[in-house]
Parts: sequence; structure tokens; C-alpha cells
Amino acid sequence: MPNPVLVEVSRGALVESIHRGSVAIAGADGSLRFALGDVDNPVFTRSSLKPFQALPLVEGGAAEAFGLSDEEVALACASHSGEPMHVDRVAAWLKRIGCSEADLACGPQWPRYEPASRTLAATQQKPSRLHNNCSGKHAGFLTVARHLGIPVEGYVAVTHPVQKAVLTSLKRLSGVGDPAWAVDGCAAPNFALPLAAFARALARMAAKQTPGAERILRCMIAHPELVGGTGRTCTALMLAAQGKAAVKIGAEGVYAAMLPQAGLGVAVKIDDGAARGAETAIALLLEKLGVLPADSGLVCQPVLNTRGAEVGECRPAEALRDAVL
Amino acid sequence: MPNPVLVEVSRGALVESIHRGSVAIAGADGSLRFALGDVDNPVFTRSSLKPFQALPLVEGGAAEAFGLSDEEVALACASHSGEPMHVDRVAAWLKRIGCSEADLACGPQWPRYEPASRTLAATQQKPSRLHNNCSGKHAGFLTVARHLGIPVEGYVAVTHPVQKAVLTSLKRLSGVGDPAWAVDGCAAPNFALPLAAFARALARMAAKQTPGAERILRCMIAHPELVGGTGRTCTALMLAAQGKAAVKIGAEGVYAAMLPQAGLGVAVKIDDGAARGAETAIALLLEKLGVLPADSGLVCQPVLNTRGAEVGECRPAEALRDAVL
Repeated sequence: MPNPVLVEVSRGALVESIHRGSVAIAGADGSLRFALGDVDNPVFTRSSLKPFQALPLVEGGAAEAFGLSDEEVALACASHSGEPMHVDRVAAWLKRIGCSEADLACGPQWPRYEPASRTLAATQQKPSRLHNNCSGKHAGFLTVARHLGIPVEGYVAVTHPVQKAVLTSLKRLSGVGDPAWAVDGCAAPNFALPLAAFARALARMAAKQTPGAERILRCMIAHPELVGGTGRTCTALMLAAQGKAAVKIGAEGVYAAMLPQAGLGVAVKIDDGAARGAETAIALLLEKLGVLPADSGLVCQPVLNTRGAEVGECRPAEALRDAVL
Repeated sequence: MPNPVLVEVSRGALVESIHRGSVAIAGADGSLRFALGDVDNPVFTRSSLKPFQALPLVEGGAAEAFGLSDEEVALACASHSGEPMHVDRVAAWLKRIGCSEADLACGPQWPRYEPASRTLAATQQKPSRLHNNCSGKHAGFLTVARHLGIPVEGYVAVTHPVQKAVLTSLKRLSGVGDPAWAVDGCAAPNFALPLAAFARALARMAAKQTPGAERILRCMIAHPELVGGTGRTCTALMLAAQGKAAVKIGAEGVYAAMLPQAGLGVAVKIDDGAARGAETAIALLLEKLGVLPADSGLVCQPVLNTRGAEVGECRPAEALRDAVL
């Protein structure tokens, strides 16, 4: 049974492309409040996992011991755009814990924010590991290792105490006993969960049922520009939600939202991995849940040609438009 | 009835994302030889239309009158990467017909070939309309207008004689009386055809049933690096096919192939618009049709992380693997 069409992309009068996918919304009591499509097969959570990957940092005492700022905790949960505000903060943080770029296991990556990339090229520089969108998460892992007093080398091995601590938190909050794992784009282990279980874990974070959740959600919501960056969807969604949601995109069409006031967790996976599908879907879901105002402008996105003219639209399809949450 | 899954993308032991879509293969007699999924709904042909958009240039005498080289005809059919070999040739061509960059209706675009983009940025330059991947197609349109002795201004209007000539060719070869149209990424009109009709038009081009086809196919096959660019799939496919196919990708998951020896046309559309899906599908189809060797290395593509390690694979799914052509 294929998943329903959640999002459609028009050109002129025709629908040119479609995005199928699934949605799970869970309550803080662990119950599934809403499901669309398959929510039982395991889905790699990708960067939507970052708030959970930051739990050992906050709950194990490392953040306190090293005096992490709220900005740094936000960066631990970020897929940042490699702008100076991100890169400079991660560099200073690493220095403070006695580490450097060389300790990061993630590879170098051109900044996603184009002007930052152009500036690097214009000054004959190449991107470093600090520019990797996950460098804040890795700085968080290194901080935990330092706090434990163990070697930082090999900290992305699934058997390393830092990654084992992440998995322990995730199992506890999702209720999944033994999640499948694989290597993420940044070389860290990433875990797969059924979408329903992922929504449950997000709801438990939203309802602050684990000690670190309060700070993680507060830092993400207070610093949306550090969790994403200039022009990024996560940043825009959190600004528009005005404290009612912490959200995190993941590669391959994943989006996660934690709603602290409602005590809800929302998880989206687009079958084909398209970010535009996940962004449109999560925006409409947040609007329906009363978290985004109806005039946010974040649900339907124009398709522009190279002259800047609007030639189509990325918008929710019927199954999502008609969903009653 | 959803289209079948044609391509799957794995991460570790799991399939992370899937691409549904449809395939049509037609013979030179207009018959549909193979169909998978829906081949009746209209699909925007996008840049796969370029060989047809070049027909008025070759068939109306403009190419001959202005002494177009084979390289220039290949560029008229190209979605090029904005490398110097592309940009310099288009600039010289425009000058020869008494036009300049300012006459191009396409917008400026950063070169798709990253080193070319970095070089522009490093020398404080911005991309021009010449860097637009469609600049060769637009140079072709301008050449036709010059040859007709009509104003070049407004040449991308669907009512302009240049675009009417494209539509006349397309109707004749596809058998579709009145294709829907919309504005393409480069501001030119683009036409939508049922995939079966598109495959028919491609087969008639492959079998040289229209006078311009011989030169267009010959030029594309002789200059694959101009039709795509360094590292591009169209370029690699044509090099590996050694004269047995002219191929052209289109945005939003379209791929077209013309097989001159077999007299076949092949059209692919990935529902969600993903290029990786279309590239993997067309490569396997060409392999099954005996056009690509089994060891081309172009069918399955590794998914690499930011450290360059292989963490998954983009590969044909069962429906495509099992297809008997």
C-alpha cells in the first residue's frame, strides 16, 4: 500500500511532480494521535535526531562542567549553514574544551549559505570541517568525551561510550528496543525508528519527560538562526511559531517538531527524500496544530525560474489538506 | 494506481528512499514497445525537449546560413555546466549572429560545474546569462529569428514564430494535437506530452524521420562534453554508448534517449522529480537495450558521506530490474 501524496509541485496549470510520504503525531502519554501512511517501518531519523544526540551532553553534566552557553547547546542540535556566526562559535567552543578542527570526525563541506561559500572561494580558501553542517553536534560529542575523561579518538564508533549514551536515551524515549543503525553523512551513527515511535520520542521531549529536554528545547527556540541559518526553513518555522515549537529537518525528507505547550511530537518522512516535500508538509501540519499563523507564508512555496518569475508552486496535496488533526 | 518503484536508495542495510516513475519505449513505426507505469498523462519534457527545440534551427536553413559548427548544434541541445568550453563558444556564436548576452531571455545562473563557480567567485565575478545551462538553446532560438529577419525581442513568447516552429515540429513527430505548455526554468515555453507520445517522437528522431534529426543526433553524439559537461551523466552515458545513443536529461526527473541503430525512443519520468532516480533508471534501460556495456559503472551510484566513505547506494528497484524489454 503506497503512502499518500502529501505534496504536489505545479508548473502552469499542471501538477509536474508529487511527493508521497507519511506523518505521525504522538502525545506525551505515548499514544499515536494521528497517522497518515505507513508509520511502522523504520526510517532513518538523520539530522532530526540531533536534539536526542545532544541529550547526553546536557544530562551527563558535560554542558554544565564546560559552561556551555545556550548558543552552543543550540549549535549541538543544528544543521547549520556554515555562516561565520556558526563556524566562529564552534571553533571557540572546541578551543575551550582543548580540541580543534582536527578532532572533528565529520568531513569538510562547502557552506550551504551561498554568500559564505562565495566568500571562501573569493579569498582562495577551502571549507574546513568546521563548515560541515554537523560541526556543532560533533563539538557536543567531543565535549561529552572530554567530560568522561576518555580518548576523543574514535568517538563516532557505534561502540564508543558517547554513541552508546545517545542510543540509551533514544531507546528509553522511543520505546524501541534495538533500532537499526547506519553511518550518517557526517560519519556519526544514525538510528532508524518507526515514524510512530519517533513521534513518541519527540512528544516525550516536548513534554520534558527527560531532564535535558527543557534546556535543549529552550536553546533551539531561543536561537533558531543557529539551528539553521539565514533563509533556512527550520529558522523561519521557529521564528513564526514564537516559542510554540522546536523543529529540526533531516536529510532524505525527514522533519521533526516538538510542541512544548501541546505536549506533542510530529514526525514526517517523504518517501523520495525531497526536502521541499518535508518542508511544505511540516508547515501545514504546524498550521493545523495552531502553532503557525495562517499567514506565515511558509506552507506554499513559489517555483521560480532563473529570471525570478513565478512559474509554479510547491503546495500540500489533498490528503494533507484534508487531514483533520 | 501509483507508478511502480523504479529506483531505491539504501543506507546501510535499509532502503532509505524510493523513486516511483514511468517508462515508455517506442519504435520508429510509432508503436509502443514497452511501458511501465502511467504513460498517458502529460509530462513536462523540460530540457529533454532541447533536441526538438533545435529542429527549426537545422531544418529551416538558419544553421547552414550562419555556418553553425557541429559544436554549436550540440550546444543548442545542451543543459551545459557553465564551463569555459561552453560559455566561450556561446559568446562567440552570439557575436557572429550580431547578438550579445543582453539578447538572451534566460536569467543568470551559477555554473553547475563547481570549479567554474568557484573561479568566478575567486575573481570577484558574477555569473551572466551565458552561464545559464540553456544559453546554447537560446542562441539557437536567436539564430532562427535572425535568419527569418524578424525582431529577436520577445522570442520566448509562445506566439513568436520561433516557438511556433518548435511546436509544429513537436506536434508532427509526437502526434499530439495540442500539447499543454508552461514556462520553463529558462523562460522559454516548455511543452507537456504523454510519456508514450514523447517516446514516439524520440523514436522518430532516432530513425531520422525528420530532415534535421541526422545532424542533431550526430552533433550530440560527437560532442557529449558540450551537451552536459565534466562529470555529467548525459556526457558519461553518451561516451559509454559509443554512438549507439543520444541522451538528454530534463529537470524534475525526466530523461530521454534516442537510439539511432535500433530506431527506438526511450522516455523516463520520475514522479517526484529526482535526477538521481532518472539517471539510474535510464542507465539500466540502456544497458538492457544493449547500448551500454554491463560494466559501465553508470547504473548503481554510491552514496558517499562528507568523508568520502560509501554509506549506501542508489540502484534500480525490482520492477525495473525485472523488466523484460
